[in-house]
Amino acid sequence: MSFEFKITRRVEFFETDMAGIVHFSNFFRMMESAEHAFFRSLGFSIHEREGDATLGWPRVSVACDYRAPLRFEDEIEIHLLVAEVRSRSIRYQFVFRKGPEGTEVAHGTIAAVCATVDKTTGKLIPIPIPDRIRSKISEAPPEFLRSTSPLSAS
Amino acid sequence: MSFEFKITRRVEFFETDMAGIVHFSNFFRMMESAEHAFFRSLGFSIHEREGDATLGWPRVSVACDYRAPLRFEDEIEIHLLVAEVRSRSIRYQFVFRKGPEGTEVAHGTIAAVCATVDKTTGKLIPIPIPDRIRSKISEAPPEFLRSTSPLSAS
Amino acid sequence: MSFEFKITRRVEFFETDMAGIVHFSNFFRMMESAEHAFFRSLGFSIHEREGDATLGWPRVSVACDYRAPLRFEDEIEIHLLVAEVRSRSIRYQFVFRKGPEGTEVAHGTIAAVCATVDKTTGKLIPIPIPDRIRSKISEAPPEFLRSTSPLSAS
Amino acid sequence: MSFEFKITRRVEFFETDMAGIVHFSNFFRMMESAEHAFFRSLGFSIHEREGDATLGWPRVSVACDYRAPLRFEDEIEIHLLVAEVRSRSIRYQFVFRKGPEGTEVAHGTIAAVCATVDKTTGKLIPIPIPDRIRSKISEAPPEFLRSTSPLSAS
Repeated sequence: MSFEFKITRRVEFFETDMAGIVHFSNFFRMMESAEHAFFRSLGFSIHEREGDATLGWPRVSVACDYRAPLRFEDEIEIHLLVAEVRSRSIRYQFVFRKGPEGTEVAHGTIAAVCATVDKTTGKLIPIPIPDRIRSKISEAPPEFLRSTSPLSAS
Repeated sequence: MSFEFKITRRVEFFETDMAGIVHFSNFFRMMESAEHAFFRSLGFSIHEREGDATLGWPRVSVACDYRAPLRFEDEIEIHLLVAEVRSRSIRYQFVFRKGPEGTEVAHGTIAAVCATVDKTTGKLIPIPIPDRIRSKISEAPPEFLRSTSPLSAS
Repeated sequence: MSFEFKITRRVEFFETDMAGIVHFSNFFRMMESAEHAFFRSLGFSIHEREGDATLGWPRVSVACDYRAPLRFEDEIEIHLLVAEVRSRSIRYQFVFRKGPEGTEVAHGTIAAVCATVDKTTGKLIPIPIPDRIRSKISEAPPEFLRSTSPLSAS
Repeated sequence: MSFEFKITRRVEFFETDMAGIVHFSNFFRMMESAEHAFFRSLGFSIHEREGDATLGWPRVSVACDYRAPLRFEDEIEIHLLVAEVRSRSIRYQFVFRKGPEGTEVAHGTIAAVCATVDKTTGKLIPIPIPDRIRSKISEAPPEFLRSTSPLSAS
C-alpha cells in the first residue's frame, strides 16, 4: 500500500520560455511524469490492457500554484501524494522543490478517472478502478496533505 | 474597456497524445494564446518594454476542468473573460467549446501578476499594472462569470 | 493536382525558449501543420481510415536549415512544396518566411511513408499511397524546388 | 578531450502522439538534452556568461533519420559523437537505441554555432569557440562516425 513517491530531475532547455523560466504548462507534464513513475514503482503501467480494452486515466481537474520560477538546469524534486481514492478516480497532490535546501517552488493537483478506451470509437468510458491497482494504493494520512488553495493571487 | 475575447483554432496533431486526445497540459497553452491575442487586440504585447525593463506576467495560480476530450482537427473556440483585476494581478476565466453546437469541453483559469524582469539577475519583481494597460481592461459583469469548481472529480 | 500550399501564422509564446527565440524543434511542428493543412485543402485528413485500418504518415527522414531566428509574435509564412512522390512515400520541402518583406528564415524537408497502423500490435506497415490521394498530388516543377543543403555549417 | 557521451532515459507519455509513438520533433529535444548533458560532463553549461554577454549555441542545420518508432516507457540510449569542430561551430551526430539489444531506432545530427546574445537587441552574434571549451572537445575518430544519409526515403 503506497501513498507517496518522489522523482528528481533536472530542468531541460526546451522546457524554458523567453522569460527565461520553465513554462507554466510544463509543471503539469512533470506532475504526470511523477504519476507514471509512481505507477511503475507499483509494478504496472499507466496505460495497460484491461481485458480487451486499454486502460487510461483521463484528467478531470488539475491545478497548480507557483511560488518561485524554475530555471534551466535547476535540480528539482517532485513529491507525489495520493490525496483521495474514490471508486472511479484518484486525486494526487504534488509539491515541487529545488536546490539543496528543497525550497518549495510550486504545488499542484491532478484528479484523474479510471477509464477504458473504446477501440472503435475512441470514447473514454469511466470504470471502477481495478482491484489489482486499488489494492496497492492508499490515501496519504491527513497530516501529509496540505490544503491547496488555487486562485489566491493578490 | 474590454473584458472578453474569443479565438478559434483547430487542434494540431502534435497536441495529441497516445490516448488519441489533446494532452491536458496543452489546454494551458491554448488559454495563454487567447490571453496574448486579447492583449494584441488592445494594442499591446504581453511582453513589452516598461521603461528600462521587460514587462511580463508570471503565473500565480492556474486550473482547468475537463468535460470532454478534444481530438485532432477539432475546431474549437476559446472564450476569455476577465474575472478579476487587482492592483498587481489579473485573473482570467476561459471556456473551451467545440463543433457547430459549441459543446463545452473544458473551462479553466489563469491568475497572473504584472512583473518586471531584472536584466542582470533575471528575477521577476511584481509591480502595479501600468495605467496604459489597466485603463483598457475591465472586469466582466458577474453574470458572465461562472463559478469554476476545480477538484470535483467523483 | 496540387504541388504547393501556404499557411500563415504567428509565433506563440510557448514556442520560444530562454534564448528568446523559437526552439529549433518547433520548426518541425510547423512544417507538419502545413502538411496537414495541405491534406485538408485536398479534402482529406492526414489520419484517415483505409478500409479496416488507420492510415498514417510516419517520418523517414527530416532536416532543417536555419538562417535567422523567429521571435514571439513574428508573423510567418510556411510554404510547402511537393518535392517527390514515390510509390509509398512523399517528400516535401518547406520554406519559412517572416515579415512584410518575406525574409527567408529557414527551409526544411520531411520525407514520410504511407503506412497503416495495425490495431492489435500498433505496428506501422508501409503501403502504396492510395489512388484517391495520389491522384490529387503532383510533384512541383524543378524550378520551384531548391537544393536544400543541410549540414553546411561553417 | 572528449568526443562522445551517452544518456539513457525513458520515453514520457507527453512525448507520444495519437499514432501511439514518439512525435518525430521530440527526437531533436532528446538530441539537445544529450548535448547539454555532454557540456555539463565537461564542467560547463550550454548557456554561460562569456564576459558581459550570454553564450549560446543557435542551430544552423539539423537532420534526423527514423528507423523504428519509440513508444511510451521504452528505455532508450542516446549516443552523442562530436563529428566536426570548426572555429565557430560544432557538429554532433546522435544514435538512438532502445531495449536490451540496443536496436537502433534513429540517428541524427545537429550543427550549432557558438554565439553571444546581445542584451539590448537580442541578436545572436557568432564568435570563435572560447578556448576553455575548445580545449575539452575533440572530434571523434573517423571509424566512430557513420555517414548519415538523410532524405533517402524510398
